[in-house]
Amino acid sequence: MNRKELIEQINAKKSFLCVGLDSDLQKIPRHLFVEKDPVFAFNKAIIEATKDYAVAYKINTAFYESQGLRGLMSMAKTLDCIPKDCFTIADAKRADIGNTSEQYANAFFDTLPFDSITVAPYMGSDSVKPFLEDDKRWAIVLGLTSNKGSMDFQMQKLEDGSYLYEKVLKTAAGWGSPENMMFVIGATREEQLKHIREILPDHFFLIPGVGAQGGSVSTVAKATLNKDKGILINASRSIIFAGNDVNFDKEAGAVAKKYQEEMATFF
Amino acid sequence: MNRKELIEQINAKKSFLCVGLDSDLQKIPRHLFVEKDPVFAFNKAIIEATKDYAVAYKINTAFYESQGLRGLMSMAKTLDCIPKDCFTIADAKRADIGNTSEQYANAFFDTLPFDSITVAPYMGSDSVKPFLEDDKRWAIVLGLTSNKGSMDFQMQKLEDGSYLYEKVLKTAAGWGSPENMMFVIGATREEQLKHIREILPDHFFLIPGVGAQGGSVSTVAKATLNKDKGILINASRSIIFAGNDVNFDKEAGAVAKKYQEEMATFF
Repeated sequence: MNRKELIEQINAKKSFLCVGLDSDLQKIPRHLFVEKDPVFAFNKAIIEATKDYAVAYKINTAFYESQGLRGLMSMAKTLDCIPKDCFTIADAKRADIGNTSEQYANAFFDTLPFDSITVAPYMGSDSVKPFLEDDKRWAIVLGLTSNKGSMDFQMQKLEDGSYLYEKVLKTAAGWGSPENMMFVIGATREEQLKHIREILPDHFFLIPGVGAQGGSVSTVAKATLNKDKGILINASRSIIFAGNDVNFDKEAGAVAKKYQEEMATFF
Repeated sequence: MNRKELIEQINAKKSFLCVGLDSDLQKIPRHLFVEKDPVFAFNKAIIEATKDYAVAYKINTAFYESQGLRGLMSMAKTLDCIPKDCFTIADAKRADIGNTSEQYANAFFDTLPFDSITVAPYMGSDSVKPFLEDDKRWAIVLGLTSNKGSMDFQMQKLEDGSYLYEKVLKTAAGWGSPENMMFVIGATREEQLKHIREILPDHFFLIPGVGAQGGSVSTVAKATLNKDKGILINASRSIIFAGNDVNFDKEAGAVAKKYQEEMATFF
């Protein structure tokens, strides 16, 4: 999916909601365990219940890899049942030397046809560029993450007084364009979000940390929306584990709808 | 495998060679394509031919993930046929927020029983700690990598005049111990290697970049060996693709033997 198509979806649904499918086998409702593939059955129902409110789905690959072959099959089937008008994200945090990143691009753009993949920046340009070679595929580079550990390195000050994450945003932006690169911005503080939007006025941001991780949709939106909207706000646990019985999908849909209604006020 | 067992293997074989199984389907000898699982057949023969000279095997997960389910099966079978006295490394460059890194630890320590996994440090402490909770498992944290892109961020100077990679080495070392943490050190320049050994006198280093990437075994060894040897030098392409016909395994074995003989002079 290219940028124009993504923006069209956002405007059509009046939503910039991304649903995170962190579908932990230990947490899905017990009644699904009679299914042949409980994780897929769970995801399929969640997608069906939320697809009118979400413009994107993010599959957290760790939760599937931990289940081995079975998990990889659940992931492939899940990806296949996401509506074609939704943007798909492999939240995989990959990156390695160039010839290896090329293999990861094959894994997540061809073998599994995702629209985008999250990418760790530590190894620099040649580890990210292989993800930028297809017009309709995106690299979503870690900028500032929402976890406590973001203080360890991302918030270290460089010689010129800037933070490492600022250097990462500015440098990585030069490897691609707003047409094929987004950034993970996990900030929840308004001032920091505004500052990051000033650094990168045009890029899309993938913003986790709303819901279970504590951020608010309206704070984030006010600080970061641009003329194309320019953000995808992700909620995972607060949507997919909203309920835990036979009505889990309805409850997930209700939470997604609530997020969408809040987002619609910004259109 | 714990540190004591690893050191025993190194001394028994007079070797600190790690063979990197970057087994690109496009590059393995054509005659193996009659096999049901060509990549596994290739790896099995390479392991058989090199196991007297190598103390460790590193599986570059990207080359398997790019092949989908088939690749994951090749990886599992390959891991299973590595001799139990060899140290195994999932070169996977994972790390995410805590609950997700826990899933990656499950994926690479339980579902696939590797001894260790390579880990990207950008997200900080809580993204690395889930890999440090088992006595016999290791996190191998990216310190300084061998690629051109290492200049982009790893070699950025911080406010206090040190390089980011130095900060990463010192900070991450505090999250674990030389019993459960190693570092990827891709440097090939002698002065830099000596400097890094001064910073971390006791930790094992996983050192790629020998062979196809240009480094020399003796330069690296002279600069980094400690009382326990304390290094694993990885060679991938220069060993596994040494030959490309029916004798590919013998040729791989011959190159591995040559590396081992050079290493033996340091015992």
